Amino acid sequence: MCFFTHQYYRTVQTTRLSIIGLGLIGGSIALAVRRSVKHCKIYGYDKSLLARSRARREKIVDHVASSAGHCASQADLIVIATPLGAARSIFEAIAPDLPDETVVTDVCSTKRSIVDMASALLPNRGRRFVGSHPMFGSERSGIAAADSALVAGCRCILTPTRQTDASAVRMVKAFWRSIGLNPVLMSPGEHDRVLAKASHLPQALATLLMSQQTSASMKVSGKGLFDTTRLAGSNPHLWAEILLDNAEHIAAELRRSAKQTARLADMIRAGDEAGVRRSLQAGRKNRARLESRV
Amino acid sequence: MCFFTHQYYRTVQTTRLSIIGLGLIGGSIALAVRRSVKHCKIYGYDKSLLARSRARREKIVDHVASSAGHCASQADLIVIATPLGAARSIFEAIAPDLPDETVVTDVCSTKRSIVDMASALLPNRGRRFVGSHPMFGSERSGIAAADSALVAGCRCILTPTRQTDASAVRMVKAFWRSIGLNPVLMSPGEHDRVLAKASHLPQALATLLMSQQTSASMKVSGKGLFDTTRLAGSNPHLWAEILLDNAEHIAAELRRSAKQTARLADMIRAGDEAGVRRSLQAGRKNRARLESRV
Repeated sequence: MCFFTHQYYRTVQTTRLSIIGLGLIGGSIALAVRRSVKHCKIYGYDKSLLARSRARREKIVDHVASSAGHCASQADLIVIATPLGAARSIFEAIAPDLPDETVVTDVCSTKRSIVDMASALLPNRGRRFVGSHPMFGSERSGIAAADSALVAGCRCILTPTRQTDASAVRMVKAFWRSIGLNPVLMSPGEHDRVLAKASHLPQALATLLMSQQTSASMKVSGKGLFDTTRLAGSNPHLWAEILLDNAEHIAAELRRSAKQTARLADMIRAGDEAGVRRSLQAGRKNRARLESRV
Repeated sequence: MCFFTHQYYRTVQTTRLSIIGLGLIGGSIALAVRRSVKHCKIYGYDKSLLARSRARREKIVDHVASSAGHCASQADLIVIATPLGAARSIFEAIAPDLPDETVVTDVCSTKRSIVDMASALLPNRGRRFVGSHPMFGSERSGIAAADSALVAGCRCILTPTRQTDASAVRMVKAFWRSIGLNPVLMSPGEHDRVLAKASHLPQALATLLMSQQTSASMKVSGKGLFDTTRLAGSNPHLWAEILLDNAEHIAAELRRSAKQTARLADMIRAGDEAGVRRSLQAGRKNRARLESRV
């Protein structure tokens, strides 16, 4: 499959894809493109020499560039796959030589701030930038953990605004589809609000639950604790950045969670069996709904 | 392997094992005994006619008894595999005809109250009762979900007291070992305290996290929420019983959890990046310790 159909891109035979940031996400995207997309030449860049060497040695990309600007300047599509904290400097590095037609997307877990940053820093107020959040990943990180199998079948949220070119949205949609992701459209604000609940809250709670454990409790724990806290293995720097970037929504979700946790404690101490059962039943009902979607 | 060695049980060639309660746990134990233990005749009883029929039809046990008392009266070892709420009536049903030498154990997730109940209701103040908590299970329930593969390699906590016969402890230890469980000894109080943190807290938090979700958030959720909330599928009746039976310890853990959740919300709202990162790092550090034990 080639994600540039001649319908919106007549002149290019081989698509030039640039991936800036060759970690778990960028590397997995490169491997998935390798596996599923024909006629696509992948340029890659990472500020880490180790990641660049590995990408070159294992032929994860076709060509390793020496700078972000260089990686971007010849591309039809650029995927910024760095943590959010690096995005500003990447935008600044690629903006001067960015061809007018080049489409830019990203993979960040929060969307409001990066969409704003793109309008401020990219040419034409970021009309060719389409925010993306491909919903795959793992508690691991780095190019060594990259795996094309992580990608297929996952959702990818796209967050175009009224200013975004429709052709850019079509191209980014087609790109994610070409590697097996299912595109869903949403506004940046709506994305950050629902993701606070669906993704950032589980991440924070799994980590707090793990930090509450002791040597004695871990010694007797079973599969329940193990599965419930898998996310606690994630990169704390990356996640501190995400939680702070989406501060308002996440703080609200955490407060809600703290309140209902304290309420359950009260019911348990009061011996309110019906209340405790109702509370557990509400969770089980939602769990059944979640499972029926899978 | 036969778990009755002649060292402590000279006269019986074939061990008579009674399992009262043929649900996920009792059924899995029966299947594991079938697979790993020679010279063991399994008697089973469940108050549900459906469970009894299934156990008979699928030959999960050798003989299905018509009452708990009948199931117990000829046994060398009795495993009470019912929920905690049914334990009192089981003790009352088996006590009158319980042979002096018969050893009784259970599988309940809390131990203080069942150990007390056994001393009050079984002959000789429960000297031949050894509380057990085999640490396997699943969010599913019922004999249809029974699976011998759930059992092997898991821990089994035994909670004898000063009053418990040493020979009974040895027999119960040997029994769990014979089906691949690793026995660990602990006092009933210590068990309930550490399990509140290691097992009951994850159960409660996974369920609350799930109940906080909405249609919109579930629509965009990924593997993170799915894995973190697996336990929310568990039986609410069973778990309400466990949480209330271990009320003091669990309420304390839940309060601690509510406090640290609120504290993280405060740090996020205050933009305290170092504090947020420290909090996430504490969880990651414990997660690494947990993984190194597996």
